[in-house]
Amino acid sequence: PSPGSRDARPAVTPVAAVLPAGGSGERLGGATPKQFCAVQGRPLVSYTVRAMERISWIADIIVVVSPENIEIMKSIIERYGHKRVTIVKGGITRHRSIFNGLKVFAENEFSNHLLQKPEVVIIHDAVRPFVEEDILSKVVMAAKEHGAAGAIRPLVSTVIASAADGCLDHSLERARYRASEMPQAFLFDIIYEAYRQCTDYDLDYGTECLHLALKYCKTNAKLVEGTADLWKVTYKRDLYAAESIIKDNLSQQVCVITDVKEAVAQVGFLLHECLKSQIKVEAISISLSKNDSHLQNIFSGQCYNFVCIKGKKYAIQETQQLVDMLEKSNIPLLYPVVLILVHLDISENISFSIGMEELTRIKKFAREVKKKNILVYGLLIQYK
Amino acid sequence: PSPGSRDARPAVTPVAAVLPAGGSGERLGGATPKQFCAVQGRPLVSYTVRAMERISWIADIIVVVSPENIEIMKSIIERYGHKRVTIVKGGITRHRSIFNGLKVFAENEFSNHLLQKPEVVIIHDAVRPFVEEDILSKVVMAAKEHGAAGAIRPLVSTVIASAADGCLDHSLERARYRASEMPQAFLFDIIYEAYRQCTDYDLDYGTECLHLALKYCKTNAKLVEGTADLWKVTYKRDLYAAESIIKDNLSQQVCVITDVKEAVAQVGFLLHECLKSQIKVEAISISLSKNDSHLQNIFSGQCYNFVCIKGKKYAIQETQQLVDMLEKSNIPLLYPVVLILVHLDISENISFSIGMEELTRIKKFAREVKKKNILVYGLLIQYK
Repeated sequence: PSPGSRDARPAVTPVAAVLPAGGSGERLGGATPKQFCAVQGRPLVSYTVRAMERISWIADIIVVVSPENIEIMKSIIERYGHKRVTIVKGGITRHRSIFNGLKVFAENEFSNHLLQKPEVVIIHDAVRPFVEEDILSKVVMAAKEHGAAGAIRPLVSTVIASAADGCLDHSLERARYRASEMPQAFLFDIIYEAYRQCTDYDLDYGTECLHLALKYCKTNAKLVEGTADLWKVTYKRDLYAAESIIKDNLSQQVCVITDVKEAVAQVGFLLHECLKSQIKVEAISISLSKNDSHLQNIFSGQCYNFVCIKGKKYAIQETQQLVDMLEKSNIPLLYPVVLILVHLDISENISFSIGMEELTRIKKFAREVKKKNILVYGLLIQYK
Repeated sequence: PSPGSRDARPAVTPVAAVLPAGGSGERLGGATPKQFCAVQGRPLVSYTVRAMERISWIADIIVVVSPENIEIMKSIIERYGHKRVTIVKGGITRHRSIFNGLKVFAENEFSNHLLQKPEVVIIHDAVRPFVEEDILSKVVMAAKEHGAAGAIRPLVSTVIASAADGCLDHSLERARYRASEMPQAFLFDIIYEAYRQCTDYDLDYGTECLHLALKYCKTNAKLVEGTADLWKVTYKRDLYAAESIIKDNLSQQVCVITDVKEAVAQVGFLLHECLKSQIKVEAISISLSKNDSHLQNIFSGQCYNFVCIKGKKYAIQETQQLVDMLEKSNIPLLYPVVLILVHLDISENISFSIGMEELTRIKKFAREVKKKNILVYGLLIQYK
C-alpha cells in the first residue's frame, strides 16, 4: 500500500497500537526516563504517539506507563493535543506492561469500558519515534497472514557468548542472525493468548513478544526488514541523534506553490532553480480551489515547509483552503508546518500602504492558525 | 593503572595500535566514507587518531586506508599535526586490511623499514572516536595475560535467527550473549600467526579478530566490559551524536586557577560559587612555579577550559609555564584548550593605559600559543 493513502489495505482491518513506555531510563544515566526526556522541547513519547496518530487506520493507541508517571503522561496528552490515546498503568517489567496494555481490549481490570478489540495489534516502543507508515503497514499485513510479524535489522556488532571464566566461548556468525526491533504486530487473539499462558518467569525476565507467540501459540513470526530509522533511543547519545534528526526533518524539503498565471509560475520556477542546490525543492503550479492530487502526494510525503506565491490581490479564503488541506493531511500533528505567503505585486499602480494593509491581515490570520501548528509568514514583493 | 599517569603498567610493554579505516560508508548512505566525514569541521578519523596519540605508552599508530584514500589520510595527518602515525594500504575486506596493518611490524611488503614489533597490538576501529585510556589499558593488560582480549557491551536488541522462509526460527536469550566491540588487544605473535594461518574464506567473509585467535591459536580472549562511549559510528544519526558529544566535551568542565594570595583566592572562590550550578567547576589556589600534583590530576581528567586569575602584575613567564604544562599533558592534542587570563587589579594607582598595554602583550602571546591548540584570552578587571 502506498504510504499515506487513506485506503491502504490495513484500513479494512481493525488495528490498535500498544506503546510500552514504562522504562526507567537507567542506561541514559539520568533521572528522567528516556521516553519523557525533552527533544526540541517536547517529550520523546509525544513524537512516537504522533507518529502513530497521523496514521488514520490505527483506531486506538494505548500508552502503558508506570504508576508514578500517569499524571505526567496525562499532561503530555493534553498539552500536545493527542487524540485516540488511552493511558494504562504498567507492571514492573516490560512484558507485564504490554500484557496490561492488551487487557483494555479484553478485560475490565484497567478501564470501566472495554475498547473495541482489534483484529491486529501493533506493539511499538515509545522510544522509537521515527517509525513510518510503510513499515507499520508491512508488519500489520504480515501479522494478518502469519499471526505475528516483527521488524528486523542487520547486526551492527558481532554477538559472542562468554564462558563462566569471563573469556570468549564462541562468536556467532553475524550473517545468520538479525537484531529484533520494533514495530511488531500480532493477531490480537494470538498475542493475548500467549500472554495468558506464559509463566511468571517469562513475565519477569523475558522481553521478546515474538518469542512468546512462538512458544505458546506455535506461531513463527514473519520477519520484515526495517529501515535504519527504527532504532531505539537507549543512551544519551541517542537523544542527541534524535534531536538532530528532528531538526533535519523540519528543514530538508520545501514545496513552492504558485497559481497558474504565467508570470507567477515563472517566479516559482526561478525560486526552484535558486534553491535546488541547497535543499530538496518541489515546485508546482495549481489552482488551489481544485483538490489537486499532486498537492495531496506532497502532503503525504511529509513536507513541512511551503512557499506560496500569488500574483493577484491577496485572497484570504484561498489561503484558508490551503491551511484546511494541510490540517486535514495530519502533517502538522507531527511537527509545525511553515507556510510563507508571498504576494508578488507586478502591477504599476498599487501603493505601498495597501500592501502593508494586506500584511496586517496575514498577521491576524497567522495568529489564528498557529493553534493548528501551522506557522504562517507573509512577504510582499513589489516588482516593476 | 590510573588513567593518564605516565607509569601505568602498559608502559613497560611495547604497544602499538592498528586502526582499520578502509570502510566504504555504505550504511551512512553518503558518498564520503564515515571515517572521513567532518564532525565539527574535522574528519572523524582524526579524533580517533588523537585519542590514541595522547596516550604516551602507544608507540606506533597504524592507520589502514583503502588505496584511493591514502592522499586524503596524508593531508589529514599533516593538517592536524598527528605524530607516530604510519599509513598502510588496505585490502578489499576488513580482515585483509588489519592483516596489512600488522605486516608493517613483520614483513617488508608495505614499508621500506620495519617498525619495531610490539609485544601487544591494539586493534581499534577508526570510527570509534571516544575510546578512553582506561579501557585501552585494561584490554592491553588482559591481552598480556590471556593472549587476547576485547571490549564487550550488553546487547541493546534481542538477537534472532531466521528460517529459510523468512520467519522466526528462534530468539537468543539476551542475558547470555554480548556485543563484541572495540578496542581489542592481542599478543602480537598470536594475532599475526592467526592471520597467517587463516583461510581466504576467513579473510573475505569474517570480521571478528577474537574469532581468529580462538580458531587458529586456541586463545580464548578475555572479555572486558566497556563503557557506552565505545560505540561505532555506523549511521548518519551516529555522526549527529558524535558532533553533540564533542560539543559537550568542550564545554562541560572548567578549572579556576588562582595564585595563593588571599584576595585573589577569594575571587576564585566566588567565581566557583557562581558557576557551580551551571557547569562542573574545580577551583584551586596554587603557586604555578611549583609542579602541583593537584593541577596534574585536573589535566589528566581532561579539562579543556581554564580561568587563571592573577592579582600581581602580569607575568608572562608564569603563563608560559602553565601553557607548557598543558602542552606536556597532551590535552590540546584532542581538542582546543581555552585559557582565560584574568588580571585582577585591586591597587588604587594603576592607570587604564597600563592595563591596555598588558592586554596587548597577552594578545601577542595568544597568537604564538594558538599553534599549540591553546586559545588564550585576556581579561583585565580593575576593582576598587
